[in-house]
Amino acid sequence: MTAQYCIAVDAMGGDFGPRVTVPAALDALKRHPSLNILLVGHQQQIIPVLERLGQQEHPRLELLHAESVVAMDERPTFALRRRKDSSMYLALQSVAEGRAQACISAGNTGALMVMGRGILQMLPGIDRPAITSAVPTLRGHSHMLDLGANVDCSAEHLLQFAIMGSVMLKAVEQIEAPTVALLNIGAEEIKGNEQVKLASRLLAEQPDLNYIGFVEGDGVFSGKADLIVCDGFVGNIALKSSEGLARLIGRKVRKSFTRNLYRRLVALLARPVIMELQQQLDPGKQNGASLLGLQGIVIKSHGGASRHCFSHAIDQAVSEVEMNIPERISEQLERYLHNSAEPE
Amino acid sequence: MTAQYCIAVDAMGGDFGPRVTVPAALDALKRHPSLNILLVGHQQQIIPVLERLGQQEHPRLELLHAESVVAMDERPTFALRRRKDSSMYLALQSVAEGRAQACISAGNTGALMVMGRGILQMLPGIDRPAITSAVPTLRGHSHMLDLGANVDCSAEHLLQFAIMGSVMLKAVEQIEAPTVALLNIGAEEIKGNEQVKLASRLLAEQPDLNYIGFVEGDGVFSGKADLIVCDGFVGNIALKSSEGLARLIGRKVRKSFTRNLYRRLVALLARPVIMELQQQLDPGKQNGASLLGLQGIVIKSHGGASRHCFSHAIDQAVSEVEMNIPERISEQLERYLHNSAEPE
Repeated sequence: MTAQYCIAVDAMGGDFGPRVTVPAALDALKRHPSLNILLVGHQQQIIPVLERLGQQEHPRLELLHAESVVAMDERPTFALRRRKDSSMYLALQSVAEGRAQACISAGNTGALMVMGRGILQMLPGIDRPAITSAVPTLRGHSHMLDLGANVDCSAEHLLQFAIMGSVMLKAVEQIEAPTVALLNIGAEEIKGNEQVKLASRLLAEQPDLNYIGFVEGDGVFSGKADLIVCDGFVGNIALKSSEGLARLIGRKVRKSFTRNLYRRLVALLARPVIMELQQQLDPGKQNGASLLGLQGIVIKSHGGASRHCFSHAIDQAVSEVEMNIPERISEQLERYLHNSAEPE
Repeated sequence: MTAQYCIAVDAMGGDFGPRVTVPAALDALKRHPSLNILLVGHQQQIIPVLERLGQQEHPRLELLHAESVVAMDERPTFALRRRKDSSMYLALQSVAEGRAQACISAGNTGALMVMGRGILQMLPGIDRPAITSAVPTLRGHSHMLDLGANVDCSAEHLLQFAIMGSVMLKAVEQIEAPTVALLNIGAEEIKGNEQVKLASRLLAEQPDLNYIGFVEGDGVFSGKADLIVCDGFVGNIALKSSEGLARLIGRKVRKSFTRNLYRRLVALLARPVIMELQQQLDPGKQNGASLLGLQGIVIKSHGGASRHCFSHAIDQAVSEVEMNIPERISEQLERYLHNSAEPE
């Protein structure tokens, strides 16, 4: 049997707060017998939800009171300085203190990154945390990073993202030499902005990276590379606009299939296939993105995650704890960083 | 009856060259009785295609020989200096000389922009051409720009894009006060990179722009704004990654619906609905993007466009000629630019 471990859940984050996070945490406890959860948040909001679910006294559930919440539109640096009594801060702190082995939040992404960096510290050689997530492809999935709030990245940052992502894929997905591509507006060497062109030269110089060059936007979901590297601005917009188109397709399908009786009948017959497709394809459903580069496991959930999706993000934290990801990353990181060119 | 007009077609551009462009041009001639076409390209490659189609002597088709072709991976500035005998150069030149009222190419986008700027000149007050295209939404479509090769845009460039796009929508779509949004990684004021934050302030100061603030990636296909403004790097990647996901969905649907006999039968019943959806949704099908900001009409087709899609792009050129877009834009532009703040 696996040893017991604890995951701190920021119960207040996200669009729905304890209404979603508390039942999702209970669902996760059912699935993982070695899991303990520390629910961090305002007791007056958490306890009524537990009572309603008849779970005031779960043996593997502990509560930690937090007086405040980081707002979605709060400046990350303000949050780090002034929200030391927030659920996000205290959840991260419980990881820093070793009380929990991972933490998870659906709150303000920028604040989570800045607080994570401030409280947990970065791995040596890494400047900024980056957020990575799986994206669906025809044969399975690829990973993409950064999807976080790293705007205005230098070429050197992109190199660090490539190294971290590559190391993570070796550890988590057991891929021997993960293929790495840079997201760009063309496959030719002459295309792209200055950072991307310089990053391409830096990545090519790394003997331990399996760098395969540029991919264009349509390569993200084609499975051309195991890891797609980009800055957080571009990654965020690529992923969210794709989600937007997927949602539009979903709505158009619904509209098309309800236009007349014949179509309604066909839709009824096609229902199992459509449900299966929906599950496979919505990139929003692949919830649970990892913050890489920190000395600790931090998982970011979609702000609008449902109970089911938030619970899936907890599963992600569970696997990272079980695979001991940060230690594996820092083991491999040193070798990479020895080979890494100094920033220009 | 409308007066006769002429459109120059770069017959050599794109992945398929005359095999696609020549039949597409003939299709367009059938649809538009006032249209004349100047087919620009290597005669030895064009004439055999015309012969095969039995159309050597079309009364509204003229040929212009071009010795060379701009390659897809050629540097735009090299192309401008050294490819003066190329099909792209000569097609643009025929517009500058007044021999044609518009030109269209499926070739190298960067070269088309740089050559367009060199040969046709910019409208006063505009620094760079920008590429705009319609994107599907639930209720119809929005427009997005820049989708071209304008990487590393300043806030001032984003303002110029907003003005050009807004003026175009007034003229082409007859929208009184088109809503304009900036593409960003969050809706809050504090989010985004420096250019986007500064651009937001510049756009808000413009009394003639109906600026509604930031939209996130998932707002692109939601119809929240008539015009979505972004730099060419971000726009290109947002659109292409969405196309990539749409293609993935298409493939998964096909795979799902062929797994067993029951599903094949359902697919057969659903075929008309699926075809209709495919037509409505593939953003690649919305072929024919406009280069705005030039003293002349230039349309960019997808490089991989089929006969049908390339012909659709010619239709786009036809409507811009019929609506006299560049003149309408320059009429309105002056008023906007008077109100425009100087770059900081």
